[in-house]
Amino acid sequence: MPYRAPLDDYRLLLNDVVDFAQVAGTDRYAEATPDMVEAILTEAGKMCEEVLAPLNRSGDLDPARLENGVVRTSKGFADGYKAIAEGGWVAIAADPENGGMGLPMAVTTAVNEMMSAACLSLQLNPLMTQGQIEALEHHASDELKALYLPKLVSGEWAGTMNLTEPQAGSDVGALASKAEPNGDGTYAISGQKIYISWGDNDFTQNVCHLVLARLPDGVPGTKGISLFLVPKLIPDENGNPGVANSLKVVSLEHKMGLHGSPTCVMQYDGATGWLVGEPHDGMRAMFTMMNNARLGVGGQGIGAAEGAYQHALAYANDRKQGHSPEGTIIGHADVRRMLATMKAEIFTARAIALDCAVAIDMARATGSAEWKARAALLTPIAKAFGTDTGIDVASMGVQVHGGMGFIEETGAAQYLRDVRVTAIYEGTNGIQAMDLVGRKLMDGGEAAYRLLDEIEGFAESAKGTLPDLAEAVWQASETLRETIEALVARDMPRRFAGAVPFLRGFARVLGSYYHLRAAVAQPEGAHARIARFYITRLLPEHTGLFVHARAGDADLMAITPDDLAV
Amino acid sequence: MPYRAPLDDYRLLLNDVVDFAQVAGTDRYAEATPDMVEAILTEAGKMCEEVLAPLNRSGDLDPARLENGVVRTSKGFADGYKAIAEGGWVAIAADPENGGMGLPMAVTTAVNEMMSAACLSLQLNPLMTQGQIEALEHHASDELKALYLPKLVSGEWAGTMNLTEPQAGSDVGALASKAEPNGDGTYAISGQKIYISWGDNDFTQNVCHLVLARLPDGVPGTKGISLFLVPKLIPDENGNPGVANSLKVVSLEHKMGLHGSPTCVMQYDGATGWLVGEPHDGMRAMFTMMNNARLGVGGQGIGAAEGAYQHALAYANDRKQGHSPEGTIIGHADVRRMLATMKAEIFTARAIALDCAVAIDMARATGSAEWKARAALLTPIAKAFGTDTGIDVASMGVQVHGGMGFIEETGAAQYLRDVRVTAIYEGTNGIQAMDLVGRKLMDGGEAAYRLLDEIEGFAESAKGTLPDLAEAVWQASETLRETIEALVARDMPRRFAGAVPFLRGFARVLGSYYHLRAAVAQPEGAHARIARFYITRLLPEHTGLFVHARAGDADLMAITPDDLAV
Repeated sequence: MPYRAPLDDYRLLLNDVVDFAQVAGTDRYAEATPDMVEAILTEAGKMCEEVLAPLNRSGDLDPARLENGVVRTSKGFADGYKAIAEGGWVAIAADPENGGMGLPMAVTTAVNEMMSAACLSLQLNPLMTQGQIEALEHHASDELKALYLPKLVSGEWAGTMNLTEPQAGSDVGALASKAEPNGDGTYAISGQKIYISWGDNDFTQNVCHLVLARLPDGVPGTKGISLFLVPKLIPDENGNPGVANSLKVVSLEHKMGLHGSPTCVMQYDGATGWLVGEPHDGMRAMFTMMNNARLGVGGQGIGAAEGAYQHALAYANDRKQGHSPEGTIIGHADVRRMLATMKAEIFTARAIALDCAVAIDMARATGSAEWKARAALLTPIAKAFGTDTGIDVASMGVQVHGGMGFIEETGAAQYLRDVRVTAIYEGTNGIQAMDLVGRKLMDGGEAAYRLLDEIEGFAESAKGTLPDLAEAVWQASETLRETIEALVARDMPRRFAGAVPFLRGFARVLGSYYHLRAAVAQPEGAHARIARFYITRLLPEHTGLFVHARAGDADLMAITPDDLAV
Repeated sequence: MPYRAPLDDYRLLLNDVVDFAQVAGTDRYAEATPDMVEAILTEAGKMCEEVLAPLNRSGDLDPARLENGVVRTSKGFADGYKAIAEGGWVAIAADPENGGMGLPMAVTTAVNEMMSAACLSLQLNPLMTQGQIEALEHHASDELKALYLPKLVSGEWAGTMNLTEPQAGSDVGALASKAEPNGDGTYAISGQKIYISWGDNDFTQNVCHLVLARLPDGVPGTKGISLFLVPKLIPDENGNPGVANSLKVVSLEHKMGLHGSPTCVMQYDGATGWLVGEPHDGMRAMFTMMNNARLGVGGQGIGAAEGAYQHALAYANDRKQGHSPEGTIIGHADVRRMLATMKAEIFTARAIALDCAVAIDMARATGSAEWKARAALLTPIAKAFGTDTGIDVASMGVQVHGGMGFIEETGAAQYLRDVRVTAIYEGTNGIQAMDLVGRKLMDGGEAAYRLLDEIEGFAESAKGTLPDLAEAVWQASETLRETIEALVARDMPRRFAGAVPFLRGFARVLGSYYHLRAAVAQPEGAHARIARFYITRLLPEHTGLFVHARAGDADLMAITPDDLAV
């Protein structure tokens, strides 16, 4: 099944839904003209269609493996990576000073999503590198930047993130890795890290690990953690990969999916590392990187959803069935319902991700606190709803295929197996929801209310053209507002108990706004019909979700571990 | 992770929720005393815990394979099957005349679910045999019955169902397999069948295939289809397996899960078959079998959910996490929410399945049309909600495990991979929903309204003890009633468009009733707290689902295949 880059959807979203024009209107992103963006997306889309998509199944059937301590990657992945690096797609948002194109995150988000749709397991590699570039740009010394950034941006070297340890998952503060000063400005890093995506490969000259570890005077918990850059091969005086560092890949995990991506257990035995940022301030640097990585992982979910959708749509158009008017199963109402749901959900998740990216771009271009708060607010929603959508749409894709969906050869099942982890890594979706109701509502709901004001203002203006849809969106926004008001009046435990349904309901309401904008922009277009489907059939889900979100924690925590026992 | 048979839950459900006492009160099932049922479930549970559960991962890692045309099963499966057969668990509901225990379906349903939880891929084998026994008991000639039933009931021989062909999936009427009379009362069966679960094995003496095929004078469509019994080895004059029949396993499918169960492509080349039932009346016989098989597949979903839940609960109780009061992640509100949801959903699905089984038992014992209608109404809900719950709970089980959930060694992912097919086979869940809004509401909603009267009557009586919960259940039942009234006033296309959300909403409301019964029975017990969680947090979902269910088909079908194109 060939993949087709959804360029029409990006066009609609950027032009009429998330108002990308304001980004292009800033000095910083003045080069991102409509023609430029169109050319970039077309070119990236072409590579995804022609080079990456054919590798997707190869990655599944021929998993990365560890041979004598060296990772061997799936057949074709080296060529695929070469195309990504040579196209400049590793870091199109990176600073032009280091070889990047300096384009907006909104464009990166679209390109990342297309690469994810085409070959998720390979795309995870440049996504990690992007995060590393981001962290170094913001926190590394000029010396480190000068040495590493050009190589990372060009894709000659790859980057990884090393947070998790066996006893320290979501609870990062429990980590035990140590960093001892060597006396020459470098540090000796020791410890074991797990779940390291693309911890090694056989197609870049070097692999650079960002590792969280504790200095001798680091206090317990997250406040005593520092960040280090630890290359696989230590650069020589000319900046070329030199002697091997004291680190190794101990083993690869045997996973449900994403077989093309080697998930490594890494062992550091006094490996030479360089401090990034201030001592004990590693979590702050990590958060910079994680925020954008979270948006990137949301995009992975959307990409997987798009791939699964295109597979299912092709099958539904092709599978003969006598009773249907179309002669194929797409004529059946329930198949149509599934496909319309998939399309509407992808649109919602994509709009949230792009709107989040626009906020990041505007914050960078203007320094505005309001845009920063908007980006911070939307990030956990983009991550969690994007990945939940990936899972739900991929599962629906299996269902549309009927029995064939369970057979690996069709590829439908692979999307579901691959995307499942995106709801877990880079902060589980439960963590995202806690971030949303906790940290992101610490302003008393101010950033959220500003967004709701915008939604309601638009809904008011749309009442003349699409009265029923506009009214439904307005009402939903009000219900969300009341829910936020209820939450901000509470302590954290009571917010956390309903955090996940709250995040889902928030995404539902946001979706109705984006769909309404698309319908208003193209009132006779296909999307107006999809928008009506979403607003009349999927949006009503938010009421039940908000009841759950507001139910508090008393009844929930009254259910004891003993109550749950079998 | 050891499996533990959830005997306390069955006790609560049978005694206080689905009123099993009325079944035991009939002449037919007078032997099914509380002591007898307790002994049966304890014994079956013990076998599941000790013999079957240890095989689950072996089936995944060491898939069934085809060697020189012969299926070789996973390591240990032959011993597991022997334990099932020797325990009499293949067909405890079968007629005592043929060696069965003649016990109620409610007991079979519980036993099947436990076997599914312990080892789904192996359990599918006796489930298929149960369906075949059912079909032969109702439709076969006395001669066929005498020859086959004792062997099938004892488990010496296994049974399969052969419906699907490459061009005929949900559209069974499109099948092309042929049956030519041989002139001696037998038929020559030719054609290819796909997705034949357990089409062969290496641990029973014979494999008996029930095959749908068309006689020379059979009209096109479902009305020209007949049912044939086609054994792998043709019984000799003493009824022992004799010469090989002209049929073979062509290949096994490579599937997302359920690796221990060989899914066969079967080729029939003039194989000798015996007619079951009347010519051209095969679909009726198949429906008898399918109805109970549908309940059985619903039970598979519940079993997989229970297995996944027990895994997740053990992990949550074990995984250390400093910030939580309990010292493990079960102290986190969101983990507690997931576990409570899993437990509440399993309870709902299990109650629906057992209530459906009670209706089947009462219909058999009394011949009452009302009980028959109740069983028919609940069957598609038991199948679809049971399997959806299997998928949702298994996916939540992965999430509770965090990163470990994606690693195959924990077993969490296997539940999700295995159970995914249950929403597809034995009639997709979309087909179940169409059956519910179509055939099962052809009485104008009478059977459904009778059930709602029962629910509302109970809710009224509970208003004294649990006023808020009882009121919520009563209101939900009224909302369901109004939704049914709206649906029965419509033609089928308009019903079908909202069939799946309708079925889910129906199950939500049913769940609230069963939870309320449990809470009233044990007002201070653990289950009362679970019931409160369900009714206050999960039940509200029904309102959004019913809005979707009532939205009709016009807006949906206005979304054309072109609108859906990328």
